[in-house]
Amino acid sequence: MPNESEIISLVKKHARLNDQVLVGIGDDAAVIKASAGTDLIACCDLMVESVHFRTEWTPPRLLGRKALAVNLSDVAAMGALPKFAMISIAVPHKYSPEFIDELLKGISELADASGVAIIGGDTSGSSQSLFIDISVIGECEGGRAVTRSGAEIGNRIYVSGSLGASALGLSFLEAGFRLSDVKDLGDTARHALLKHLAPEPKLRLGRALGEAGLATAMIDISDGLSTDLSHILEESSVGAMLKATALPIDDCVLSATASVPAVDATTLALNGGEEYELLFTVRPQDQDGLTFLVKTLGERVTQIGEIVPGRDLKLERNGIIETVQPRGYEHII
Amino acid sequence: MPNESEIISLVKKHARLNDQVLVGIGDDAAVIKASAGTDLIACCDLMVESVHFRTEWTPPRLLGRKALAVNLSDVAAMGALPKFAMISIAVPHKYSPEFIDELLKGISELADASGVAIIGGDTSGSSQSLFIDISVIGECEGGRAVTRSGAEIGNRIYVSGSLGASALGLSFLEAGFRLSDVKDLGDTARHALLKHLAPEPKLRLGRALGEAGLATAMIDISDGLSTDLSHILEESSVGAMLKATALPIDDCVLSATASVPAVDATTLALNGGEEYELLFTVRPQDQDGLTFLVKTLGERVTQIGEIVPGRDLKLERNGIIETVQPRGYEHII
Repeated sequence: MPNESEIISLVKKHARLNDQVLVGIGDDAAVIKASAGTDLIACCDLMVESVHFRTEWTPPRLLGRKALAVNLSDVAAMGALPKFAMISIAVPHKYSPEFIDELLKGISELADASGVAIIGGDTSGSSQSLFIDISVIGECEGGRAVTRSGAEIGNRIYVSGSLGASALGLSFLEAGFRLSDVKDLGDTARHALLKHLAPEPKLRLGRALGEAGLATAMIDISDGLSTDLSHILEESSVGAMLKATALPIDDCVLSATASVPAVDATTLALNGGEEYELLFTVRPQDQDGLTFLVKTLGERVTQIGEIVPGRDLKLERNGIIETVQPRGYEHII
Repeated sequence: MPNESEIISLVKKHARLNDQVLVGIGDDAAVIKASAGTDLIACCDLMVESVHFRTEWTPPRLLGRKALAVNLSDVAAMGALPKFAMISIAVPHKYSPEFIDELLKGISELADASGVAIIGGDTSGSSQSLFIDISVIGECEGGRAVTRSGAEIGNRIYVSGSLGASALGLSFLEAGFRLSDVKDLGDTARHALLKHLAPEPKLRLGRALGEAGLATAMIDISDGLSTDLSHILEESSVGAMLKATALPIDDCVLSATASVPAVDATTLALNGGEEYELLFTVRPQDQDGLTFLVKTLGERVTQIGEIVPGRDLKLERNGIIETVQPRGYEHII
């Protein structure tokens, strides 16, 4: 079987566009020119049992919530507002009506909270794996969608929230810990597990950055900072210099790795996937505007480096500059 | 596991709409008010290996083609024009890059021929089954989408093309015949297999009926005439009287069933699924307009009955009137 990027290349090869398509395959979402003042944003995200999730690891309500959240995060990364969702699910016999009801409840609770209407979908049986594919349609002001290709030399690189907790949560799950156990584990484990199982898409921040025209390029961190930043660098034909000391490593990652020399917190923050934080670039002259905006929204963003000439992703750590290879993960089955 | 209609009821229960949603879950596609003059049409269709298809039964190119065709048929049944598609596929190890390439070629050939741009999608591995979920976005003039709920007493009921061949093709496949064998089987089997494996969505007819405002209600025949007509009756709160002699039973069905007394051609035409013909209702005064339109397009449509008071679907056969139960199939695994 070809891997995910090979399949995507095959899809790209076969995709022909038209002049209403402003952004096609290869960004967080597609952008369609709908009418004079509005562009449409469309994306879909597929979650397959035992590839993207295990139902032993997550309550169905959080699973449904996450299946929608990862889509909303893509729309946020375009600086747009999600409006409509369609849900396709294929369900094996082993799952009860109560399980499906909880799954759909998780989707609809986040949809309601985000102003998203569930307008359709499709359902099927499945022999072995639960399969959830959600498509989302959003809107933004005409011409305002933030792609991966607008980063310019001298732009500052920002990331929202903190990094590494989702990957830590995943490693806890792999080690056998469950959300139902975390009373015994304390706040660190609970925080890490929830970051992985119930990510919060940065809808208000993404939308505000798009509306204000503050982000020159933007992506959400789904495959890991190193991989997702590389996408921006590739699409924008630029390089980046990051500072290891600037990375907003999550406190739970720092405390969990402090006693485990084998695990490096910086590496986890660089390569950990499924963070659903926003990674974006801003012109230096827009620094004050950004500061004002994030303060107004009560969000946290951190400058982690700068866009530089070249094509490489470099990291300054302990006075040494190293080239970083994108090591974010591809789901492998 | 709940069955498909139970899952759909659960989805409906959890779906909250907003005032931009003109038609939500429960029609061939959703309709969204996009701008003053245009409505958006959105739908998705999920095909799961060993539920909806077997890869031993179909060349991958026809499989890809069909996965898109069933979506385009839904858009046609809304009287609209499909414009954009997103493709999600989960692929087990057993399939080669050549298989995937052919599958995508089948999708893109039909997309090109139909003026549809492939704007995005998602890919994943899968442990056992191939999943293909395609979402399509289309457009129609504001207020022109044809739903299932507009049929009125006295309207004439029409169906495009002919009926029963897809179900016959499926029974040939189940009996072990393959498209590669049909040289030996003759035109009847080839026609039936192709009707099942490579359905032609009635895009021009559906769009023209919608644009001309000729269809008061419309649906595509995916689950079988009896089931799909029942959807129109239910949504429109009316009944129907069909004439058995008027059903346009496909010639290949007539010839195949002539020598097999156990199989009734009328029953096959009434209940056979996956025809992807259009079933629609027309006011008597629009008869001439319809005749002119189908002649211009070179399409075939047949009046099969009339909308009557009540809620039942009735069939006049050999001078006897019987009540027909919807017996179209649900995919069961």
